[in-house]
Amino acid sequence: MPELRYNILTREWVLIATERAKRPEDFVAKKEKKQIPSYSPACPFCPGNERLTPPATRVVPASGAWRIRVTPNKYAALSKDGELRRFAQGIRRTVAGVGIHEVIVETPEHGRTTALLDDSQVELIIEAYLDRFRYASADPRVEQVTIFKNHGEAAGTSLEHPHSQIIGTPVVTAQLRDRLANAAAHYDEFGECIFCRVLEVELKEKTRIVLETDHFVAFVPFAALTPFSMLIMPRRHMSVFSEMSDPEAADLACALRRILATLYHGLADPDFNYTIRTAPTDHLGVRYYHWYLSIIPRLTRVAGFELGAGMFINVSLPEENAAFLRQVPM
Amino acid sequence: MPELRYNILTREWVLIATERAKRPEDFVAKKEKKQIPSYSPACPFCPGNERLTPPATRVVPASGAWRIRVTPNKYAALSKDGELRRFAQGIRRTVAGVGIHEVIVETPEHGRTTALLDDSQVELIIEAYLDRFRYASADPRVEQVTIFKNHGEAAGTSLEHPHSQIIGTPVVTAQLRDRLANAAAHYDEFGECIFCRVLEVELKEKTRIVLETDHFVAFVPFAALTPFSMLIMPRRHMSVFSEMSDPEAADLACALRRILATLYHGLADPDFNYTIRTAPTDHLGVRYYHWYLSIIPRLTRVAGFELGAGMFINVSLPEENAAFLRQVPM
Repeated sequence: MPELRYNILTREWVLIATERAKRPEDFVAKKEKKQIPSYSPACPFCPGNERLTPPATRVVPASGAWRIRVTPNKYAALSKDGELRRFAQGIRRTVAGVGIHEVIVETPEHGRTTALLDDSQVELIIEAYLDRFRYASADPRVEQVTIFKNHGEAAGTSLEHPHSQIIGTPVVTAQLRDRLANAAAHYDEFGECIFCRVLEVELKEKTRIVLETDHFVAFVPFAALTPFSMLIMPRRHMSVFSEMSDPEAADLACALRRILATLYHGLADPDFNYTIRTAPTDHLGVRYYHWYLSIIPRLTRVAGFELGAGMFINVSLPEENAAFLRQVPM
Repeated sequence: MPELRYNILTREWVLIATERAKRPEDFVAKKEKKQIPSYSPACPFCPGNERLTPPATRVVPASGAWRIRVTPNKYAALSKDGELRRFAQGIRRTVAGVGIHEVIVETPEHGRTTALLDDSQVELIIEAYLDRFRYASADPRVEQVTIFKNHGEAAGTSLEHPHSQIIGTPVVTAQLRDRLANAAAHYDEFGECIFCRVLEVELKEKTRIVLETDHFVAFVPFAALTPFSMLIMPRRHMSVFSEMSDPEAADLACALRRILATLYHGLADPDFNYTIRTAPTDHLGVRYYHWYLSIIPRLTRVAGFELGAGMFINVSLPEENAAFLRQVPM
């Protein structure tokens, strides 16, 4: 019998297709392994091609070169200049598209995927996230900051060179506002952070845990919407990403690198997105929200039922996903 | 300057990338036109292969054959047998995966896409939707009924033979509950159906209208999340799909067929989903909600920003989409 499971963090029901569930092995990418060169002459993110992007906003130097480079997105979705203007007339509301849109180039090596970087390099990526998150949050026009990575065509990127992006928007979305309100309601009813509670239950049940480090726990959620999606959640209660300490940042780098490596080795380098879900910076220190990193391998397609009903069908079992990933060498 | 637009029906902000917007012509499918035969020996939906599907639940007969055939989905996402059982313990809530999942085979002709059917055949499809919607809604275990169609691989189907699906789930999703609550709040504040109001404004502004018929209006929403997405909305206020009269059903068939034809001819048969967004049947006659059909061409990919922020970037202009489609012969 299939089973509907409720995601208490997002209020979403997911249909776990227990009976027609695929085996973890069925999700291993069948695609031809493409050889990616370590340098590409036309790539705007490769060393020597810095003129192809706007001037850097953060550079981690190395001897005669750089290890991390952050620049404004040349094809920014939001204009970095201009005033915040809001319009409301009748049923129409619009806001000028101003904000922050930057690209974090994660390594000088064109063909070195993030899963195969050294921990020290991933630590530099996390440090860049923190720095640019603080920068974007300090912009008075910005209300919500989203850090995300698109890996592979199914995840929405055509650029091979490993990179992430950060976008600061002048509005808070309904998705985030609803999740904040839901978490606040749980706090008021039960006197606990619902995320801390989920973490406690996952650690007790163990079946969906993929990795534990000093400061983080990676697990497949009980009501995962899609196969092999995972959360990397800090053990310590923190509402906003930038509340993380230096030791925690180093530990997150290690956890993230290992989780990406399990996907890379276990599922043959699947396309994926990840994103950091955090409260807005004007919510620093709130007791009811808890930031985390969400990884979404793009192994299945969203079809009409998902769009129409607002309910996903997961054709795999979260517990089997986790058991499979735990056996992959990190 | 890009512009953020607010969808007052869903509370979603969308980023309209005015400056890097693509031209309507850029969305015309480049794919090789595949010849699809009118009959496929292995297709479970072709005449003569009826043994490959469960027994039909509705058949519209023709001389020695059929024009429409509805059957339970052989690979149903929900079990049609079994009791509704709910579990709640600690933070876990699950519901037995029981409900209705049927397939509406839209035509006996394997290769005849819906856009190219006669109006009379599309009318039979809409009649089948109504019949099966009423059937699913009458099941005491079912709380929400979703009718949808997946056309093409990017829309999540691999079966060529034109078909739609209907799923009746034993829960109402947060997506629908939130939209009902939002519409009710608007009604309480302004004393009007927000959908009726949107329709009135669209008809006055005219720039996003694609088609008007006696009983329906098709338009690209002001805050369309993706290129060329459209709503087909009844002019008369009705909260639930099954409140539609016979003349309205015939008119919807005509409107739907023409809108699908504009996509087919204008954008070279793009992959698309459509779905009917309706209040649950226990909301028959409510004053604040208004059902409609939503068409979503699958021309772009959802990436990390959309997943992470809950905000779409539309790389086209709704007004340009509509102007382009108005010029396509229907």
